Amino acid sequence: MSEFKRSACPVANLLDVLGDKWTLLVIRDLVIGKKTYKEFQDSPEGIPTNILAERLKRLQLANIIERTQYQERPVRYAYSLTDKGRDLQPVLHEMVKWGNKYVPGTLTPEDIKSITQNLQGKPSGSSPDSA
Amino acid sequence: MSEFKRSACPVANLLDVLGDKWTLLVIRDLVIGKKTYKEFQDSPEGIPTNILAERLKRLQLANIIERTQYQERPVRYAYSLTDKGRDLQPVLHEMVKWGNKYVPGTLTPEDIKSITQNLQGKPSGSSPDSA
Repeated sequence: MSEFKRSACPVANLLDVLGDKWTLLVIRDLVIGKKTYKEFQDSPEGIPTNILAERLKRLQLANIIERTQYQERPVRYAYSLTDKGRDLQPVLHEMVKWGNKYVPGTLTPEDIKSITQNLQGKPSGSSPDSA
Repeated sequence: MSEFKRSACPVANLLDVLGDKWTLLVIRDLVIGKKTYKEFQDSPEGIPTNILAERLKRLQLANIIERTQYQERPVRYAYSLTDKGRDLQPVLHEMVKWGNKYVPGTLTPEDIKSITQNLQGKPSGSSPDSA
């Protein structure tokens, strides 16, 4: 079991990378179509910039997100989910269900869908270079 | 939206209570049939005792777990999930799926089932006063 950071438990291994108050919110932002550092910063929770920078690096190292340069002067990057990152969506969906059930007034999947559509400026799809 | 700690996002609200490296491991322990402070401490991740005590209090306050006294001298408590806590199981299940897919060698649902059965000393069921 020594190849694991804490144990062979799959939940513990997920939490080693994603277990904090912020990281899954960055994944959430990517799922709903946000792509840039500024968009993540502008989310209502107000992620501190040092935490955001550290999390983006950590998620890239873990191969959960990838970064693409979409502009040269000034250099600008867009972030997107890898397959490994996209496969976190079922975890988020169950979190949404639980939150909706036990925290009255939280945004429903329908609310979230309309935010997503507004962000993307179209009913579906997202590409890293459209920012 | 001012009634929320950070935002109306259901994921953010879940993470406000459960977003760290340890809390969902305590929920996991309860799901697989552990009930006592000592059993949580003996889990392979080795949760520090001050963190465990704080998390148990926080989870009780959030009505995710409840505590029952099962012995008088010395006083001993058993912990169990409320309905709100049990409803976190789908979140954990999706985390297990993701961990199994992306962290090779992590325990599968079958492995976890046999741990559960060993802990409970029987194929199914768990009661707070059986410890």
